Amino acid sequence: MPKEVSIYEVGPRDGLQNETAVLPTARKVEMIRGLLESGIKRIEVTSFVNPRWIPALADHMEVAAAVHKLERADDVVFSALVPNMRGLDSATRAGMKEVAIFMAASQTHNLKNINKSTEKALATYTEVVREALDRGMRVRGYISCVYGCPYEGNIPVEQVIEVSKALSDMGLYELSLGDTVGVGTPRQVEHVLQQLLEAGLTRDKMAVHFHDTRGTALANITVALQMGITTIDSAAGGLGGCPYAPGASGNVASEDVVYMLQGMGCTTGVDLDRLVATSSRLAGHLGHELPSKYLKAHIGHCTRSMRSV
Amino acid sequence: MPKEVSIYEVGPRDGLQNETAVLPTARKVEMIRGLLESGIKRIEVTSFVNPRWIPALADHMEVAAAVHKLERADDVVFSALVPNMRGLDSATRAGMKEVAIFMAASQTHNLKNINKSTEKALATYTEVVREALDRGMRVRGYISCVYGCPYEGNIPVEQVIEVSKALSDMGLYELSLGDTVGVGTPRQVEHVLQQLLEAGLTRDKMAVHFHDTRGTALANITVALQMGITTIDSAAGGLGGCPYAPGASGNVASEDVVYMLQGMGCTTGVDLDRLVATSSRLAGHLGHELPSKYLKAHIGHCTRSMRSV
Repeated sequence: MPKEVSIYEVGPRDGLQNETAVLPTARKVEMIRGLLESGIKRIEVTSFVNPRWIPALADHMEVAAAVHKLERADDVVFSALVPNMRGLDSATRAGMKEVAIFMAASQTHNLKNINKSTEKALATYTEVVREALDRGMRVRGYISCVYGCPYEGNIPVEQVIEVSKALSDMGLYELSLGDTVGVGTPRQVEHVLQQLLEAGLTRDKMAVHFHDTRGTALANITVALQMGITTIDSAAGGLGGCPYAPGASGNVASEDVVYMLQGMGCTTGVDLDRLVATSSRLAGHLGHELPSKYLKAHIGHCTRSMRSV
Repeated sequence: MPKEVSIYEVGPRDGLQNETAVLPTARKVEMIRGLLESGIKRIEVTSFVNPRWIPALADHMEVAAAVHKLERADDVVFSALVPNMRGLDSATRAGMKEVAIFMAASQTHNLKNINKSTEKALATYTEVVREALDRGMRVRGYISCVYGCPYEGNIPVEQVIEVSKALSDMGLYELSLGDTVGVGTPRQVEHVLQQLLEAGLTRDKMAVHFHDTRGTALANITVALQMGITTIDSAAGGLGGCPYAPGASGNVASEDVVYMLQGMGCTTGVDLDRLVATSSRLAGHLGHELPSKYLKAHIGHCTRSMRSV
């Protein structure tokens, strides 16, 4: 088990993009300030995609400008998603020092989600990443549908390896392996990570990104930790649920991850009480409960004795 | 990892006892019929405790009588909680072939929850168990607060070992190790189970009983499986939440456990769709959502592609 784990907070981007209500820019900045104050060092603050596709993040320029004015430690890193050269240019103008690109291990998901084949996506990103590196940025990569695709079902691990290697070869500093629809289970996680390691990817370049849709995220993270992975993506409160199922879980909740890691003696640098305070305020602004179990237990003071066992 | 896992369903007892609304007897029997039809073989159907303490289960005689009339496979086992000789007598009259006793690894929890010191509880149960075995019953034991106590906080593993050995020596066929307030984390689970094994308890006599209050139950179960444990307590829909936190989780949800086990290639004999149908009907009867994540995802058809990662 690693002694130290890095939390990569995706709530302001992967979480908020799935909210039906659009949070005002000031509330987003308040959320990000709260995350910083809780001790989180790596935050994906927005996405430089066409507002037509993700209206909830249409204020990316304003968010980026505001967060760069926030008081923060020297080692804090803000990142933002960029889908193409145009997005990269916007991110550059917004002063981003780190960007993230995204594609799936599934051909169909790429065609439906980013309107490109896997091959075309890789070709596009080769240019985007080269340009970003030339501009002195760090680049992160998301690979979605690693444990299954909503269109294709099972995804052969060979496809995950192929996309991972191609992205890694472009010079990305980290690959975030995403369970986009939250279908993965621990043995599968072990298998996929093992295969990636055997294919030559190194632990320090891998992050895990689980959605807790079916409740398996912390179990999957436990196995990833056992395999030496030290970067975990999560979202405050478990933001990012399915818009068709009220209360359904989205990204694994940062609170749940930090609680489990604390109990396991892994340092994260995150103050759980402050994080809970940030998520609670956010839930109020969004006008609905957030799915994090730790958060609900905390709000309900679930520490008294339940009857018998 | 074990190839086969036995699900011990505690919903009708550990789940319903914490509901504020009392479910009519006929609804309880309908729930138990649904659980049987989903393939669950071991069900704790009620508790023979004084109705003054647990009014929700005051109809224990009626429930027991009704479930014994249900059509079922030969290897189905119904069990019920008994706190003392009087409860055992009721269970005997009700035709129970298996009963369960319960106490905590925590002195304070025993004093507050069953009004007896640990020593007095062990003395009482020695007689109850002897009598139950004489009557040809199988006896199961619950040990609560294994991973922490709401009054005492941390519980030394030595206390867990002491109570476990004392109960095991009485002739119990299985000990269910309970995380009553849902505070346990994977490394702690590994440590406690390891210590119990080293103290001479055998895997086949141990079951794990997690509450998912802080979201760690499936992670804890994963570690227990890695250590060779093959019996898992769970409740349909994740019943048994904290009455002070709407939507907070209770017992780990049978659906979530079965989904994860299926993904890991462990056989449970449980049909997930039928189980979901039973929990969905139950949620309707109780008048509120149940916390199971798998259930929520299923109801919301959360299989479509979410935007990007």
